[in-house]
Amino acid sequence: MENVLGLRCIQCGKELAPEPGVYTCPACGSKAGIMDVIYDYSAINKITSREKLSQSKDYSIFRYLLFLPIHPETPRPHLRVGWSPLYKPPGLGKQLGMSNLYIKDDGQNPTASLKDRASIIAVVKAVEEKAPTVSCSSTGNAASSLAGSAAAMGLKSVIFVPSRAPQGKVAQLLIFGAKVISVQGSYEDTFRLSAEAIERFGWYNRNAAINPYLVEGKKTVALEIAEQFHWEVPDWVVLSVGDGCTIAGVWKGFKDLYQAGWIERLPKIVGVQSTGCCPLVDAFLENRPWQPAEENTLADSIAVGVPRNPDKALRAVCESGGTMIAVPDEEILEAMRELGRTSGIFGEPAGVTGMAGLKALVKQGVIGADEKVVAIVTGNGLKDVKNAIAAVGEPIKVEPSLDELMGKL
Amino acid sequence: MENVLGLRCIQCGKELAPEPGVYTCPACGSKAGIMDVIYDYSAINKITSREKLSQSKDYSIFRYLLFLPIHPETPRPHLRVGWSPLYKPPGLGKQLGMSNLYIKDDGQNPTASLKDRASIIAVVKAVEEKAPTVSCSSTGNAASSLAGSAAAMGLKSVIFVPSRAPQGKVAQLLIFGAKVISVQGSYEDTFRLSAEAIERFGWYNRNAAINPYLVEGKKTVALEIAEQFHWEVPDWVVLSVGDGCTIAGVWKGFKDLYQAGWIERLPKIVGVQSTGCCPLVDAFLENRPWQPAEENTLADSIAVGVPRNPDKALRAVCESGGTMIAVPDEEILEAMRELGRTSGIFGEPAGVTGMAGLKALVKQGVIGADEKVVAIVTGNGLKDVKNAIAAVGEPIKVEPSLDELMGKL
Repeated sequence: MENVLGLRCIQCGKELAPEPGVYTCPACGSKAGIMDVIYDYSAINKITSREKLSQSKDYSIFRYLLFLPIHPETPRPHLRVGWSPLYKPPGLGKQLGMSNLYIKDDGQNPTASLKDRASIIAVVKAVEEKAPTVSCSSTGNAASSLAGSAAAMGLKSVIFVPSRAPQGKVAQLLIFGAKVISVQGSYEDTFRLSAEAIERFGWYNRNAAINPYLVEGKKTVALEIAEQFHWEVPDWVVLSVGDGCTIAGVWKGFKDLYQAGWIERLPKIVGVQSTGCCPLVDAFLENRPWQPAEENTLADSIAVGVPRNPDKALRAVCESGGTMIAVPDEEILEAMRELGRTSGIFGEPAGVTGMAGLKALVKQGVIGADEKVVAIVTGNGLKDVKNAIAAVGEPIKVEPSLDELMGKL
Repeated sequence: MENVLGLRCIQCGKELAPEPGVYTCPACGSKAGIMDVIYDYSAINKITSREKLSQSKDYSIFRYLLFLPIHPETPRPHLRVGWSPLYKPPGLGKQLGMSNLYIKDDGQNPTASLKDRASIIAVVKAVEEKAPTVSCSSTGNAASSLAGSAAAMGLKSVIFVPSRAPQGKVAQLLIFGAKVISVQGSYEDTFRLSAEAIERFGWYNRNAAINPYLVEGKKTVALEIAEQFHWEVPDWVVLSVGDGCTIAGVWKGFKDLYQAGWIERLPKIVGVQSTGCCPLVDAFLENRPWQPAEENTLADSIAVGVPRNPDKALRAVCESGGTMIAVPDEEILEAMRELGRTSGIFGEPAGVTGMAGLKALVKQGVIGADEKVVAIVTGNGLKDVKNAIAAVGEPIKVEPSLDELMGKL
């Protein structure tokens, strides 16, 4: 935290001190006035270096403590968040005709999604701000990760989920002892009700677009990718987009490293949505402000018709020289099957949407077959078994007899 | 593999060379003649040491390559199996009145269970034996882990599951591209049919009791516990028991380290079953041979009425000076809730059965409040959402209105 210079509004550039409870720009308002955390990179470089970091035995996001907006002495939950594996699955590369394809499997986090990276920061910040209760609205993963981190930290959690949230995610919440409010409406309704309740009750607000510290947790996925590649960044990083916070975090991570002089170039960022709900892809491709969209996709984690962090998301893609694409749900299910069959990785629909978009962009020639590409799998398929079954069908049923088996094989 | 001296029958002590296709003792038969892999510990100590190992940056089971029965040059799948986190959750310790309680969370493996440790060895051995197809029967976790490892390795898999296997586990199998045979019968029926089919088609046999190499994969959980404690072993290691292979693996791991001179004492091992299916607990407590039991427990992974590795399991408990206990399913569900609420860890029913047994043994005074204890969580709760819902109930449903929310809170 001593390396944090302050917060800067992405709209008007105003800078604020990082005080408790200050999240958005007072001049631009709580919707537009989303802030970035700004660091003193020379102070960071006085204390650590790439070489020093490589000696660390802390294989969690806290190996990057100097790049995080928390006090080093604040207690932290025991959960091992981050340092997810970066794979180069040969079968998948072959399937997609790519020679340099990597998967960053963020389903391998404690509550099985990338959102753990933000939630663990949320509970540390809540402790710093002496808040006994944390809260958020979420289509599922932010919720279950917050509930898990809160349980580990000994905090209470109140979670708002839309009624369509998959059972696996809701079960996680309840197991983690959260008070779970299932809002009978859309994600937009859910978000609004949570905002009202958080305001009314004074809970710690984990809604990632509003709270600039959470994107800082998410950015660790980029720090890890850079370190796992020995600081040789890939050409492209591809992932799904809902609210826009995760893609913003990825870009922030690479930019922090670049500004600190730890990497020599920046990757191009690709954001992928489902054609059933793609307000940001449409805005990007048509070069116009985004408009609210229907939420007609089975990829529940990115079924966000009213994204809360559209500006940071679009900025990540544009600044990086990347692109966006929308893919139909059938291609998302196909990506689930291909990833599983060729690599032994089980992603949830939104988790593999990046890969589905990558496949389309390779076909279109936008991404070259030999470019170095990382597709981030943002969540584990076990969270949404119903859609997995939809992707693959049912097993072969036999009575316990070899004769019957021989007949059916 | 150069450190492997051979296989030794646990029944008659006969030693065999580690030839492809040789798994059980020809003298004692395929049921009783289960083998142990024996190592040349002085050869291991000539090449490595505790100090040397601590420098390894391979945070997977392959950091223990010299203790594994595979050739170092055989290709290995990319999946990161092992080095699961060892937590000391303060809330859980408080809840159970224990000052020195640790959780080894093996739900944090690629397919979300401890079985990945065995399956990744199976596919490496299959490649060594030039088998293009691997097969097993399983209540679920061994199956999904084998399918995942096989997919990563580019092998085919044929999996036999009993009809009661939870949907999450079956979905994983299908996503990993396995041919899945759902046997309309008990686990015993499923095992028998798989054995017949494996014999008939010549598939590589991953049934862990029959194949001595797989227990060697499982033993890595013990090697990790020892290393994570800086080679100061705990007083007790507690885990659930079904077929008996995992508890056998844990004991083998500690014994290997002890015989190599890497640890100075051995822990006591506790095996826990559900009262709804506890043939091994009954045999242990009544000091008599085990008898087949009904499979009346919701903890599907340990609902094994006819265990395949009873001798190795009972030997682990007896040799170590440990004990066994059975707990009712309600206490298993209670353990799921307690672990989640206090620690942010979501275990499947069989995954937390060890913890449920531990709680009972602490109450009985068998395990002291200040003893150093590790409870292994063997699988992630996301694999079995139905039972999680049974444990915790449903969320609070509200229309998107603050007034209605206030009324319901």
